[in-house]
Amino acid sequence: MRTIPDIIISRLPVYLRALCYLQEQGYHTTSSKELGEKIGISPAQIRKDLSQFGEFGKQGTGYNVPFLIEKLRQILHVDRVWDVAVIGMGDMGHALARYQGFTNRGFRVAMVFDSDPAKVGERVGDFIIQDAREMVPAIRAAGIRIAMICVPAQAAQEVADKLVEAGVKAILNYAPISLSVPADVHVQYIDPAIGLQRMTYYLD
Amino acid sequence: MRTIPDIIISRLPVYLRALCYLQEQGYHTTSSKELGEKIGISPAQIRKDLSQFGEFGKQGTGYNVPFLIEKLRQILHVDRVWDVAVIGMGDMGHALARYQGFTNRGFRVAMVFDSDPAKVGERVGDFIIQDAREMVPAIRAAGIRIAMICVPAQAAQEVADKLVEAGVKAILNYAPISLSVPADVHVQYIDPAIGLQRMTYYLD
Repeated sequence: MRTIPDIIISRLPVYLRALCYLQEQGYHTTSSKELGEKIGISPAQIRKDLSQFGEFGKQGTGYNVPFLIEKLRQILHVDRVWDVAVIGMGDMGHALARYQGFTNRGFRVAMVFDSDPAKVGERVGDFIIQDAREMVPAIRAAGIRIAMICVPAQAAQEVADKLVEAGVKAILNYAPISLSVPADVHVQYIDPAIGLQRMTYYLD
Repeated sequence: MRTIPDIIISRLPVYLRALCYLQEQGYHTTSSKELGEKIGISPAQIRKDLSQFGEFGKQGTGYNVPFLIEKLRQILHVDRVWDVAVIGMGDMGHALARYQGFTNRGFRVAMVFDSDPAKVGERVGDFIIQDAREMVPAIRAAGIRIAMICVPAQAAQEVADKLVEAGVKAILNYAPISLSVPADVHVQYIDPAIGLQRMTYYLD
């Protein structure tokens, strides 16, 4: 299969989220126009993006919502449940360990770690905080390939190195710092200050 | 001034974060090559983006780090401190109310709200949780123009409507749902499941 541009892939989860929301509201079909209005992306862009993966809509009748959801889940590989490790049990790690928003979206937190001896052994939601020194063998033994880093900036690269050593291939990084990882490891960043700065440009 | 494409604006905060990190590490100058390696963006792209705003680097000597930081702060309007309201004091709202990552990046949480009577009046970090019913007058009186929504998906649109009524012009939305707002109100989304799904496409 030819390579699909990253920018198209990055929009698919947004389409999937909107479609699931439409489904919850009882919609069985939708159009690129309706979907576009919900998410602020042009109908032409949506049609073009989806056409990269096949013929999902019919002229005049639009998209079948459950079918398109199923297809997008397959394309994004979230027609399964991925186990995720969370490293760093400060406020953000706590919030993620108890986050309800992963349900039905392909992920479940499976283990949580911290390097603070005072936190190790403590319960957070359904989890017992494990010692970060056990991170590499524990993640490797469980075959976990996805992790979220919630440690302070100065510790994040070291944690990332360990995750790579443990076989992790996808990192969601909450630490406000860019990570260096091998080419086959994917990183996405979550940084609220960046989100805010992208908007203040437009405020005066 | 001509309009700068959104996609360029969206990269500027990433440059700024990386430059601040270089400065903390003692760098006084850097190059588009060095910066690009840190953040995974091509040097040509960085030079092109920055050239939209003037002449910041010198051929051969690169960029002066503190100068470029100052300029980017001015461009992004974070050469000041913006007050931010947080709506929804669940785990995520708590984490944001106590988040250290806004310091020196242009933002400070100024007030926090929840609709749960059991939470109103409770202390979180430096804040007393205010009643969400007071949100519109309180935000308007304080002149706050930026807010973060941390309520459940089904409550997010109603909160967004109230924020717009209160004069908010920039919303960072943690609820996993797309918001409808007037054209002059900016929204950015933070959704860890979307971040993860953008990576699982590449995993098998």
